Amino acid sequence: MTKHVRVLFAFLACAVLVAAGSPVALADEGMWTFDNPPVKQLREKYGFTPTREWLDHVRLASVRFNDGGSGSFVSPDGLVLTNHHVARGQLQKVSSREHDYTHTGFYAATRDEEMKCPDLELNVLVSMENVTDRVLAAVKPGMSDEEALRARKARIAEIEKESLDATGLRSDVVTLYHGGEYWLYRYKRYTDIRLVFAPEDDIAFFGGDPDNFTYPRYDLDMAIFRVYEDGKPIRSPAWLRWNPAGPKAGDLVFVSGHPGKTDRLYTLAELEFLRDYSYPVRLDVMRRMIETLEEYAAEGPEQRRQATGMLFGVRNGLKAYTGEYEGLLDERLMEKKRKEEEEFRAKVMSDPGLRKKYGDAWDLVDRWLARAKERMAEFRWRRLPWSRMAGTALTIVRYVEEIEKPDGERLDGFHDSQLDSLRFRMFSPAPVYPEMDERLAVTFLEIAREQLGDDDPFIRAALGGKTPEEVAHELFSKTRIGDPDFRRKLVEGGREAVAGCKDPLIAWARKLDPFLREVTKWHEEKIQSLQTIAGEKLGRARFAVYGKSTYPDATFTLRLAYGTVKGYPMNGTQAPPFTTFYGLFDRSLSFDRQPPWALPERWNGAEKKLDLATRLDFVSTCDIIGGNSGSPVIDREGRLVGLIFDGNIESLVGRFVYDERTNRAVAVHAGGMIEALRKIYHADALVKELLQR
Amino acid sequence: MTKHVRVLFAFLACAVLVAAGSPVALADEGMWTFDNPPVKQLREKYGFTPTREWLDHVRLASVRFNDGGSGSFVSPDGLVLTNHHVARGQLQKVSSREHDYTHTGFYAATRDEEMKCPDLELNVLVSMENVTDRVLAAVKPGMSDEEALRARKARIAEIEKESLDATGLRSDVVTLYHGGEYWLYRYKRYTDIRLVFAPEDDIAFFGGDPDNFTYPRYDLDMAIFRVYEDGKPIRSPAWLRWNPAGPKAGDLVFVSGHPGKTDRLYTLAELEFLRDYSYPVRLDVMRRMIETLEEYAAEGPEQRRQATGMLFGVRNGLKAYTGEYEGLLDERLMEKKRKEEEEFRAKVMSDPGLRKKYGDAWDLVDRWLARAKERMAEFRWRRLPWSRMAGTALTIVRYVEEIEKPDGERLDGFHDSQLDSLRFRMFSPAPVYPEMDERLAVTFLEIAREQLGDDDPFIRAALGGKTPEEVAHELFSKTRIGDPDFRRKLVEGGREAVAGCKDPLIAWARKLDPFLREVTKWHEEKIQSLQTIAGEKLGRARFAVYGKSTYPDATFTLRLAYGTVKGYPMNGTQAPPFTTFYGLFDRSLSFDRQPPWALPERWNGAEKKLDLATRLDFVSTCDIIGGNSGSPVIDREGRLVGLIFDGNIESLVGRFVYDERTNRAVAVHAGGMIEALRKIYHADALVKELLQR
Repeated sequence: MTKHVRVLFAFLACAVLVAAGSPVALADEGMWTFDNPPVKQLREKYGFTPTREWLDHVRLASVRFNDGGSGSFVSPDGLVLTNHHVARGQLQKVSSREHDYTHTGFYAATRDEEMKCPDLELNVLVSMENVTDRVLAAVKPGMSDEEALRARKARIAEIEKESLDATGLRSDVVTLYHGGEYWLYRYKRYTDIRLVFAPEDDIAFFGGDPDNFTYPRYDLDMAIFRVYEDGKPIRSPAWLRWNPAGPKAGDLVFVSGHPGKTDRLYTLAELEFLRDYSYPVRLDVMRRMIETLEEYAAEGPEQRRQATGMLFGVRNGLKAYTGEYEGLLDERLMEKKRKEEEEFRAKVMSDPGLRKKYGDAWDLVDRWLARAKERMAEFRWRRLPWSRMAGTALTIVRYVEEIEKPDGERLDGFHDSQLDSLRFRMFSPAPVYPEMDERLAVTFLEIAREQLGDDDPFIRAALGGKTPEEVAHELFSKTRIGDPDFRRKLVEGGREAVAGCKDPLIAWARKLDPFLREVTKWHEEKIQSLQTIAGEKLGRARFAVYGKSTYPDATFTLRLAYGTVKGYPMNGTQAPPFTTFYGLFDRSLSFDRQPPWALPERWNGAEKKLDLATRLDFVSTCDIIGGNSGSPVIDREGRLVGLIFDGNIESLVGRFVYDERTNRAVAVHAGGMIEALRKIYHADALVKELLQR
Repeated sequence: MTKHVRVLFAFLACAVLVAAGSPVALADEGMWTFDNPPVKQLREKYGFTPTREWLDHVRLASVRFNDGGSGSFVSPDGLVLTNHHVARGQLQKVSSREHDYTHTGFYAATRDEEMKCPDLELNVLVSMENVTDRVLAAVKPGMSDEEALRARKARIAEIEKESLDATGLRSDVVTLYHGGEYWLYRYKRYTDIRLVFAPEDDIAFFGGDPDNFTYPRYDLDMAIFRVYEDGKPIRSPAWLRWNPAGPKAGDLVFVSGHPGKTDRLYTLAELEFLRDYSYPVRLDVMRRMIETLEEYAAEGPEQRRQATGMLFGVRNGLKAYTGEYEGLLDERLMEKKRKEEEEFRAKVMSDPGLRKKYGDAWDLVDRWLARAKERMAEFRWRRLPWSRMAGTALTIVRYVEEIEKPDGERLDGFHDSQLDSLRFRMFSPAPVYPEMDERLAVTFLEIAREQLGDDDPFIRAALGGKTPEEVAHELFSKTRIGDPDFRRKLVEGGREAVAGCKDPLIAWARKLDPFLREVTKWHEEKIQSLQTIAGEKLGRARFAVYGKSTYPDATFTLRLAYGTVKGYPMNGTQAPPFTTFYGLFDRSLSFDRQPPWALPERWNGAEKKLDLATRLDFVSTCDIIGGNSGSPVIDREGRLVGLIFDGNIESLVGRFVYDERTNRAVAVHAGGMIEALRKIYHADALVKELLQR
């Protein structure tokens, strides 16, 4: 799954793209917002009509992991179920040279033993309000594109702040249908999250990178947290009862979670842009990052431990992007897109009213694509290196400046409604790995210099006549940014303290920030402004032509998917709907127990303890993508029957097109989780809590 | 595997095609003749040099199943190991409405219980002699193409008869490198073959048609016969010791067996002919046969029992041909072929001597392809229906006529050296299924009429103004051809008895034979004559350019393949080198034990008896194809470590091109067989005999 990638590679993505028309969703397709569930499809295909109570229950039991995943409440006392690979970041942060919980797993038999996460924020979507008219009304006739963009942004900030002040809830105006609609989503935030259970990564991620994004699978990719407030477990706003029997083949199931990003509504021109300008570079850069991290990891066990999480993330991203790229290279897929677009465009153009209002949208897309190509390398490489420490330094430099401005004029990410979450991350006590960040910074600077040239002003500023090695070593060997107290004191000192700060990383971020701001401003004014207008036009044209019969592209907001537990044609035969513990031992032995198919120590002899016929993983036609990791799989009765952790290799093209024939969501089975918790981990108290009625 | 298909569909193949140049074999590629083993490759890649003793031992332990498969001696007392699906024809023939051994399996705990097969002939290759010069010397300067063909044929028949008379051994002159070489192969024939062991088809063919030609697999596709002579088990000419430990991943292994047909040396023009004229029709016809057989099978359990074997064969063929056809449609594959051919042709054309001798070969190919297209439908459809009974009737009609001619002038199949095997089949006491043959005849006649038209003289003769239903019913409801005594008496009566015979099937075969002879004659004189010359030229040109550094296309003669036990990239991940019994239970349960993944009754509870970690199947890079089914997998020490039963889906394109990256031979593991024989079948006496030293 692409979880980490979404976070890591947001900055690699050049010129984020906008929307285009597409016909009505068919089959089990769709990542539906909770205000517009696929009622018709569910009734006609499955004879099921979700009630408002059912929908509210599922929504309030759904949890967003803000660093890029999903989860659900599974007990009245705040237990939250997600994937091991979603928990991976926090597992790494609570680990040390002495205790590597990622590798050994963790179980707190009592509440006292539950282990607090340094900087994990969970959100629950408590209300949704359509604010499209208010946002659009901010734009007055006669405004230039840039003025319109600023006016819209200011209005959004205003709506968010107003809501925050009134409710105290995190308030985000989210853009759906690429500007077809704007919604105010209010979230309850939780920041005292404690780890209750995680298995060893060798069983959670059994099969490693080779088996990632494939099926049949045999992974126990689970982790369990508990949410606290005021030092006590919360009363969950809603929670899913556990159904260890799980679903039968052919059963209707649902997935409620936070798909990160799909590009299904893109115009053909945008897809071609991705194919020709974006993916080849991304893939190349990821390969170089992997090389750097592998070299670092090879230096010793501690280096390996530090690099493990990021290596997982980048390899995961490389595999996902490779699959997506193959989709873009697939002529049949592009032909399908071409045909859909031609139909949609013909419908718009043949109606004089629609043509007048929306007909120029495709030209706008062409315009911003042309502009994006002009400054591609600068937009891509005038950035800070891949480093949490460097990112934190930049956040501090900007924070002290931005908060002095009126809310509507601030950089994205620094609005009032976002500050609590931002400060939570900025002051995180999580450990940092300066040696690893230094290596990555060298690779980043080498690539940036190759791409921009020695004479680029940004490169000259970043290197100051030195080599990437010299610069990176100076920055990361001497910075105190890893110390939370240092950060807190610096921020308390405000603009003046930051301006005078001699810390090399702070000073470097200060020096480079103007370049970054300039390129961001260019992107907003020249690219985003056109994108937004084109997106709004295409989104509204789609409603006019097809009605609101479809779902918006994924935006890491809460969505409901539905589908059937079902195998699929694979490699000349059928992939089965389920796998069992038998298959886990088969696959491990098939490879002579060699990594990544070696089982953890605790699993030696497990074949004698487990009921091997118990189902371990299963697939369904539910339409998901990276960000859905950790989502609950839910039955008609609203019970938990599984835990999404992956998509099959055929699902990667789902970034652009959903194909029910082969696209499958891969989940851990509710019964398999209980079997392992009981027989392998002896987590009896936890099982008791999970199975309460 | 394509075992049955080779036999069933020989008559569907239009205009059998000939050879073209191709460069030196690389990697683990090749189906090598025992006179020319890949010594260089084995030494350089594996540090192994097979001795003459090693090669003779392996050759003499290898057995050909004349109805289309391979096997090996595995005990000093004549035990022969092969696949269940190779034994399937005989299992069907020894079965009845009351005892369906295909389905229930069979085990003879004592020799008395061993069950005689009605018409199984096994051959062992006891000697090989290069007779190229003798064959080519038959062709004198100034002969026309047709005269040359006849002279060549007469010389071959003469060599065969001479050898038969001198040695009493079955003597076949085989054409290798499409005429580059002719060899006299002498076989020891065995016709008293008794069944010792076969498992249930649900475990032998676990996963059925979906899993056929795929991997990972969990099949126990084995059967064991014993060879008798004079009422006593023979002393095996050579036999393979059983190595139940099997091979390790990465080990060098060999396969000795009888690959049926590859088309790797075809010219591009011939491949295009297959792609455009041959495969689409074949595939369509097979689908219609399957429909007919499925309808028949649906009528009741006895019909299902009768149809099972043929359904297996045709479905198997459809899947194989589909994979091959996809290869032909693959532009990259065709491009590779094009490049190879261009290089080869350029080398021939740039050397004046070669150009003069061989340069017109490609034009000859073009000429016969053009001729073949002219009478394609007639060649394809002027045949008898798919029916063993109809085939037997035609054999009788021809036999009494042909044996009166000098040997060299007879139809192929009726030469002296072939008569023993022919009579063995002609008088087989195996049961016949007239109702099933009737259905198939209706479908055949319908297609033939569609393809040839109502006014085609053959169609008019075959139908005589009636419908296909009427004709087929009359033929099969009244014929006595199913009775071996009737056949024997008729043949004893000679030409006169056959000419006066009123049996409807005999009379029909008599009436249609002239049409069939005419089209055969046309094919020999107009097509085969050119094919042979073109083939010889291309074959000899290849030797001139590349030396005898390569292997001939498969011809159902004994070959040696070699390779490594090794997984491969599959569907986004790795396929493992081995599978285990754990995987068998996983896959069965994954599909809720639904057919074709249901286990036989006897296997219920087997998970408690078996050591589930025992290896069941494995893959190697050995280069095989249909006809290799039942071949032993042999280690450096000449011991049996596995039993070939399939190729993976990626191997189907191996008909035209071998790709070491993904082409894999699938085998049952020597240890898995012993484990099942012991714990499930309690075949202790058999195991003891197999494991003797």
